Amino acid sequence: MQRYPSRSDLSDMESYRIALLGLGTVGRAVAELLCTTRDECAARAGRPIEVSRIVVRDPSRDREVPPDLPGEAILGGDAIEAISDPEIDAIVELVGGTEAPLEWIRLALEQGKDVITANKAVLAVHGDELFGVADHHGSSLYYEASVAAAVPILQVIQQGIPAGPVDRLTGILNGTCNFILGRLEELSFDESVKAAQAAGLAEADPTLDISGMDSAHKLALLARILLGCSVPLENLRIEGIEGLSPHDIEFGWEHDLSLKLIAMLRRNSHGTSLGVMPCFLPNSHPLASVRDEDNAVLLEAEPFGALVLQGKGAGGMPTAGSVVADIIRAARGESIATPRSGVLEQITDPGDLPVRHYLRLEVPDRPGVLARVAGALAAEGVGIAALDQPEILDTVGEQVPIRIMTHPVSTTQLDAALALLDEDLRSITRPIRIRIEE
Amino acid sequence: MQRYPSRSDLSDMESYRIALLGLGTVGRAVAELLCTTRDECAARAGRPIEVSRIVVRDPSRDREVPPDLPGEAILGGDAIEAISDPEIDAIVELVGGTEAPLEWIRLALEQGKDVITANKAVLAVHGDELFGVADHHGSSLYYEASVAAAVPILQVIQQGIPAGPVDRLTGILNGTCNFILGRLEELSFDESVKAAQAAGLAEADPTLDISGMDSAHKLALLARILLGCSVPLENLRIEGIEGLSPHDIEFGWEHDLSLKLIAMLRRNSHGTSLGVMPCFLPNSHPLASVRDEDNAVLLEAEPFGALVLQGKGAGGMPTAGSVVADIIRAARGESIATPRSGVLEQITDPGDLPVRHYLRLEVPDRPGVLARVAGALAAEGVGIAALDQPEILDTVGEQVPIRIMTHPVSTTQLDAALALLDEDLRSITRPIRIRIEE
Repeated sequence: MQRYPSRSDLSDMESYRIALLGLGTVGRAVAELLCTTRDECAARAGRPIEVSRIVVRDPSRDREVPPDLPGEAILGGDAIEAISDPEIDAIVELVGGTEAPLEWIRLALEQGKDVITANKAVLAVHGDELFGVADHHGSSLYYEASVAAAVPILQVIQQGIPAGPVDRLTGILNGTCNFILGRLEELSFDESVKAAQAAGLAEADPTLDISGMDSAHKLALLARILLGCSVPLENLRIEGIEGLSPHDIEFGWEHDLSLKLIAMLRRNSHGTSLGVMPCFLPNSHPLASVRDEDNAVLLEAEPFGALVLQGKGAGGMPTAGSVVADIIRAARGESIATPRSGVLEQITDPGDLPVRHYLRLEVPDRPGVLARVAGALAAEGVGIAALDQPEILDTVGEQVPIRIMTHPVSTTQLDAALALLDEDLRSITRPIRIRIEE
Repeated sequence: MQRYPSRSDLSDMESYRIALLGLGTVGRAVAELLCTTRDECAARAGRPIEVSRIVVRDPSRDREVPPDLPGEAILGGDAIEAISDPEIDAIVELVGGTEAPLEWIRLALEQGKDVITANKAVLAVHGDELFGVADHHGSSLYYEASVAAAVPILQVIQQGIPAGPVDRLTGILNGTCNFILGRLEELSFDESVKAAQAAGLAEADPTLDISGMDSAHKLALLARILLGCSVPLENLRIEGIEGLSPHDIEFGWEHDLSLKLIAMLRRNSHGTSLGVMPCFLPNSHPLASVRDEDNAVLLEAEPFGALVLQGKGAGGMPTAGSVVADIIRAARGESIATPRSGVLEQITDPGDLPVRHYLRLEVPDRPGVLARVAGALAAEGVGIAALDQPEILDTVGEQVPIRIMTHPVSTTQLDAALALLDEDLRSITRPIRIRIEE
């Protein structure tokens, strides 16, 4: 068994030399954390960790590099040169985006180097290629920080839980959406998005987050490990939080439900279903109380029951913590089993399972409208369990919301009923319908 | 002597051979899990895992050993012989208790073998010796299952969070106590203990659990990793849940507080405080919703904010999951850094920090009693924020409960005030006083 070596023991050992690609919020936090926890990192890794190169787009700009950074980092602009430097053991890719990082990660893996990245998009889109390259060249790809920032979820599903199938994964994987849904208790959707932008959580174009696509990227990475194969995103039901309103949150309050954007994986005798969609969860559900930009994952399997992990899902330092944990694993030579190749062919729709649904329609404020809505639902066999039309005091008198709770029905069947509503009734806004999970 | 046939999918690789010591609830679950996830375990470990020996107290009794156990297990009664078998790579100690396991673990470590155990008591009491032996002989000791069963908390604090100090750890580490506190919503304390015994969660003598000592053992193991030194249990404030009643739970309901047995570690500029005691947590606290025999740990540190892990804290299969995860790590040769030697000398009392307290006294139902209680508290400067005396319909008319919420005060100061109450007022039952954590 290995004892924590003293600093003098470690100075005789060969350093693990990394190149940082990118010095944005996360890159700076990684550099800072490597400084402030230098001895602890060396003790855990069994050897000193050195930052030998930092690659930034414009090296002439003033950079906030910690003065006592471990190593003698060369600040430069040439990623290819840094990757090809024979002194470098690993690259830490923190640039984001899918084009340049794809090239860099591939090149580094081809040269047998370790790659540590927080970039879920490049892995979700080009994972098959990159994991294949790593496999072929015997190099290792570490990506803990790409899913749920500070929550060590990849490590736990790779090593912490029993080997063997996980029956259900339920995740809040996008901190920006969770933050927006929280603000929706008091603000409109657009105002909530602005609040997320002001808090530094949402991009100027928030589409990737609020469309559910970012959650789907992360779900695909989790599924790759849990199922041992890649998941074609185009075969998934991916629904975002666009158009949700305080009316929907209020409905939740009235029924002891919390509104969350949920990424889910379900395995049963009928197959594997995967998808991302907003769901109402009972307030007693372990993920119902996840607030602000927190992320959380609920894992369920017969051997261990239910396991919940919750922590910060965004932010420079929380993400950096997982990046540094990966750097240490890489320096220790702990390779992660590469997911088996292959594509998940049979994906069922999580919307197929009948559950109660919440439905909100913005309809013209005229006599007969309710009857026509009820008729359309009845025609597709959708039963109404509860219905209300909240009084809108400041309405201009043209559109009013109708809120309905259905009896259990599949999302597909409900969508067929909604398609029966004519343009007039569906009006300008698309109907909002949300599954009520148990 | 019974032999079980071996299937050999990975016959070209050298197997990792283990001896199971103990075939109780956890031992059988480990054997079962190694069978049902045999291929997945081999894939993760990089080589097949074989059960070569099973040591039980009485080998002549019929045993429920899975027929397709990986390996050709010899069922026998001699632990020493099994440990000394040169074919054996590791022993998996699942007997419990501190005497025989101490001898077995020490012997195995001295022979350079890996040891996997779920035995927190032997590590908490004899940890210094055993970690020292492991260190001296270069052998490895794995004990994930000894703390919070299915929750991979040791792995997360060793590898998942950034290296560097953790400021606060708050844990629900005893599933039996958490179960009893849940039952206390409807049952008396004695009935709740019986319910835990009926559920297979409490021993016939539940003292180790309800005294808080089991939680303290687990806290000491977590502290050993987080602080890098051993914690002398005799210097800790360890308080259990004896004597709590439905009156206390009701008080929590009225004030949006949940009653939990909390193991805590706090680090600040004044030092490190450690202890175990029942606490009221606000219902919004991440650990307030932990139910039944679940365990949970909240870790807080500047780099990652707050991280919560929650899962089953007891049971054969949840514990076996962590045991098997450790067997896989051992088979991969992933050694865990041993805590530095040394003893934590300066331990401050977490009761020193002033917080509001809840106080329940069972006092004689006579005029003037309230005035004397208030007087004793006032004499030590303890302010009363709220007070009530619930009406007891079925009382025999001699003892009534008085419930008090104090203004912030240290537990030490409150105890001084309670000492001023004369025997008559403290009556037969000792006063119940519980910290209200923020």
